[in-house]
Amino acid sequence: MRNQSIKLSVDAVVFGYEEGNISVLLIKRKYKPFIGKWAIPGGFVWNEESLENAVERELYEETGLKINYLEQLYTFGKPDRDPRTRIVSVAYFGLVRPSIYKLYASTDAEQVQWFNIDSLPELSFDHYEILLTAIERLRGKITYEPIGFELLDKKFPFSDLEKLYTTLLGREIDRRNFRKKILNLNILDELEEKVSKGSGRPAKLFQFNKKKYFQLKKEGIIFEI
Amino acid sequence: MRNQSIKLSVDAVVFGYEEGNISVLLIKRKYKPFIGKWAIPGGFVWNEESLENAVERELYEETGLKINYLEQLYTFGKPDRDPRTRIVSVAYFGLVRPSIYKLYASTDAEQVQWFNIDSLPELSFDHYEILLTAIERLRGKITYEPIGFELLDKKFPFSDLEKLYTTLLGREIDRRNFRKKILNLNILDELEEKVSKGSGRPAKLFQFNKKKYFQLKKEGIIFEI
Repeated sequence: MRNQSIKLSVDAVVFGYEEGNISVLLIKRKYKPFIGKWAIPGGFVWNEESLENAVERELYEETGLKINYLEQLYTFGKPDRDPRTRIVSVAYFGLVRPSIYKLYASTDAEQVQWFNIDSLPELSFDHYEILLTAIERLRGKITYEPIGFELLDKKFPFSDLEKLYTTLLGREIDRRNFRKKILNLNILDELEEKVSKGSGRPAKLFQFNKKKYFQLKKEGIIFEI
Repeated sequence: MRNQSIKLSVDAVVFGYEEGNISVLLIKRKYKPFIGKWAIPGGFVWNEESLENAVERELYEETGLKINYLEQLYTFGKPDRDPRTRIVSVAYFGLVRPSIYKLYASTDAEQVQWFNIDSLPELSFDHYEILLTAIERLRGKITYEPIGFELLDKKFPFSDLEKLYTTLLGREIDRRNFRKKILNLNILDELEEKVSKGSGRPAKLFQFNKKKYFQLKKEGIIFEI
């Protein structure tokens, strides 16, 4: 083969969901290029580690966040995407609840911060394109795969799940239809407990039936919203 | 950064669909490792070319097949997936009608051949895993995205589209429901012409409304089958 001089990196798009807000985790770069600019956490793959280990390691090193499941998103490989040399990056994404994590900027990161996806700073490299791809994938995915387990309280009123979907989809949903579809999946256990929020009637609490939920998730089950 | 010694390659999983059969295009390797064994076409990325150009070039060089749209599938990066050195491969996939292509084995390929996916030979490297991932993606994709334009005759009876879906899904479908859903998408023009096949009644012919079809495909429209 010809002498190949391409480097391989990984990037982690981590979305945070909390009470109607979607944010993304960004770092401020400590080194050139794009010094002082915001970027998606990531870095070079070591020779002996898997891509998954590399992305978890980089995310942890730069942000203090330890996530044990990131899903592969897409590989970005335009020849001129990095001004240094050709770097092809395998991007991953995940969805977490920001409040349960403490952030620590380190290694290549001068600072680390959650940004609401509606008020993003200027991003380095092609990271805006990577982020848009991740948002699109997330919005597509939730229409045919159950999500929420990791993002809601253990016990929650149905309206919290509705709000999660409305926020992630970025549009209103047909509430009656949504309720019917979700309940038909049998992934929720309806509890006897109720919760009072504001001035409304007390609402029944639900919790995910872990076993059924993860089984359906694994099957990549289709349900149209 | 540490000295990285990872090489980058691309692989092309090309499925062929024809009258109820799904096949995949494989090459017999001319060189070590896995000399004389079957493999998915692919090879190393050149420094100056995009990943898309690399996969189209490799596919054409090894098989004579020129496809102008391959979709990125997944990047395979287990540290020991190649016995030579660490090679990370970005896999792509596409779906074509085999009969309209002529195959020519060349460069690293000693032979090139379509194999029915139900009777595959032993595959080199982790190519069986790549192929399974591609089959899974294909089956998932067709349940929420319209396909068929490139695979059916220009004018076709509705039963051909049904058969395409039954074959790709690997299971029976609810025919009435399927017809209703497809027609509701408004991607088919119903023609005045009819066709007679076997002893049945002459069947109306349909053709894809290119504009609407590609618009819906672009939107990644959701329809549940």
